[in-house]
Amino acid sequence: MNKPLILITNDDGIHAPGLKILTDVMRQLGDVIVVAPDKPMSATGHAVTITSPLRIQKLREETGFREFSCSGTPADCVKIGQKAILGKKPDLVVSGINHGSNASVNVIYSGTMAAVIEGAIDNIPSIGFSLDDYSFSADFSKCAPYIRSIAENVLKCGLPDYTCLNVNIPSVNGSPIKGIRIVRQAMAFWDEKFDHRQDPHMRDYFWLTGVFRNSDEGEDTDEWALRNNFVSVVPMHFDLTSHKTIPLLRDWETGNLN
Amino acid sequence: MNKPLILITNDDGIHAPGLKILTDVMRQLGDVIVVAPDKPMSATGHAVTITSPLRIQKLREETGFREFSCSGTPADCVKIGQKAILGKKPDLVVSGINHGSNASVNVIYSGTMAAVIEGAIDNIPSIGFSLDDYSFSADFSKCAPYIRSIAENVLKCGLPDYTCLNVNIPSVNGSPIKGIRIVRQAMAFWDEKFDHRQDPHMRDYFWLTGVFRNSDEGEDTDEWALRNNFVSVVPMHFDLTSHKTIPLLRDWETGNLN
Repeated sequence: MNKPLILITNDDGIHAPGLKILTDVMRQLGDVIVVAPDKPMSATGHAVTITSPLRIQKLREETGFREFSCSGTPADCVKIGQKAILGKKPDLVVSGINHGSNASVNVIYSGTMAAVIEGAIDNIPSIGFSLDDYSFSADFSKCAPYIRSIAENVLKCGLPDYTCLNVNIPSVNGSPIKGIRIVRQAMAFWDEKFDHRQDPHMRDYFWLTGVFRNSDEGEDTDEWALRNNFVSVVPMHFDLTSHKTIPLLRDWETGNLN
Repeated sequence: MNKPLILITNDDGIHAPGLKILTDVMRQLGDVIVVAPDKPMSATGHAVTITSPLRIQKLREETGFREFSCSGTPADCVKIGQKAILGKKPDLVVSGINHGSNASVNVIYSGTMAAVIEGAIDNIPSIGFSLDDYSFSADFSKCAPYIRSIAENVLKCGLPDYTCLNVNIPSVNGSPIKGIRIVRQAMAFWDEKFDHRQDPHMRDYFWLTGVFRNSDEGEDTDEWALRNNFVSVVPMHFDLTSHKTIPLLRDWETGNLN
């Protein structure tokens, strides 16, 4: 049986420690190609590069392993990895391990998860992994068995069409991780402010800051799982339609207004 | 009765003709503040600026109208407009008129629609408007009555919590627009390629190109509405959870693996 072909990317850039751990685990499961941004790309959302060209650079090549840096975003990396480097679809796309949670509303802003959604748009089983610790020197040591278990399940069973997974791993600081929970995206939000400053030339500038607040107490949410030392797995799709709202707006339909 | 306060942004930048048309219509409905990117920001997805500060510049001020350019993304504009300029929530966020369709999967990549989702995250009724014509000199003349009708409905009736609208207007080239249809996001995709070139220094670079293909024939979709000269209105939310997949993955739950 052929080994599965696994495409890896992230949004913290080619030099991030989380990418290294994820690559080590995936190399135990199949042939690996890494295509990751040549610089940090956090909070780039689902940006893609259309007004400038992309560059790629091969950094390493060994049996069953190739590594490239790319000048683009995480979503670009998934596109160019398939279309310009591999010339075919991989069996699995994985992204991460992100330095910081992508649970709840964070998924919307995340470059890591944009790469995963890009994989789902191409109907490739895709998984994003994030550790709930923003530190560059975060302790990823407990992540590997969970990443391996979830990736093995996806390689073995697949996922429903156009579906991907958002996996967040708690930062437990010595406590044990309790296991894996399949949950929904919590309705939790940032309470944002702008820090208003003046530069040395007396011109105003603004830094975005914020405090994360969770008012969704559901025990079926990713935030609950993380707060209770479980790995959260949210199955995701990219149909943004609020289907239940469609019938509520029917009487807004009109004929020609010109 | 106080006039509604309307925050306007876009992703084509402060000088785009589509923004001017949208502003003209909104000034008929309420007090208006424009906070738009100082340069084109198409396909920036839901990027936000966290690793550098933001600048804003006031360009115009009249009774009931203020206009600012911002160095950030469309999502940044919605945040800074509320938190640093207004100091409160507007009654309505509108974004566009985008030069080009944001129907079907395009919504995922769109900076215009990221601004609208940002409004929904803040639980403000929010609407994105796009014209199915990428030209900078597109004919926006037939858009105004539809934009006005939809915005008036939203101001009068509101929207369900955390819900926004993705409105796409057909480019009819002389034919009449037939009216408004409330529809779902079509499952239609780009068939993408990379155009591989060499620069004058013999180094490789890659341009993303693609052809749009719709294999979703549903007459309840935004693509069907546009192809049949209707304005499409898709109610949207930002819960990416594939709820129907959750029970399928229950047996992936485990206890501690370390």
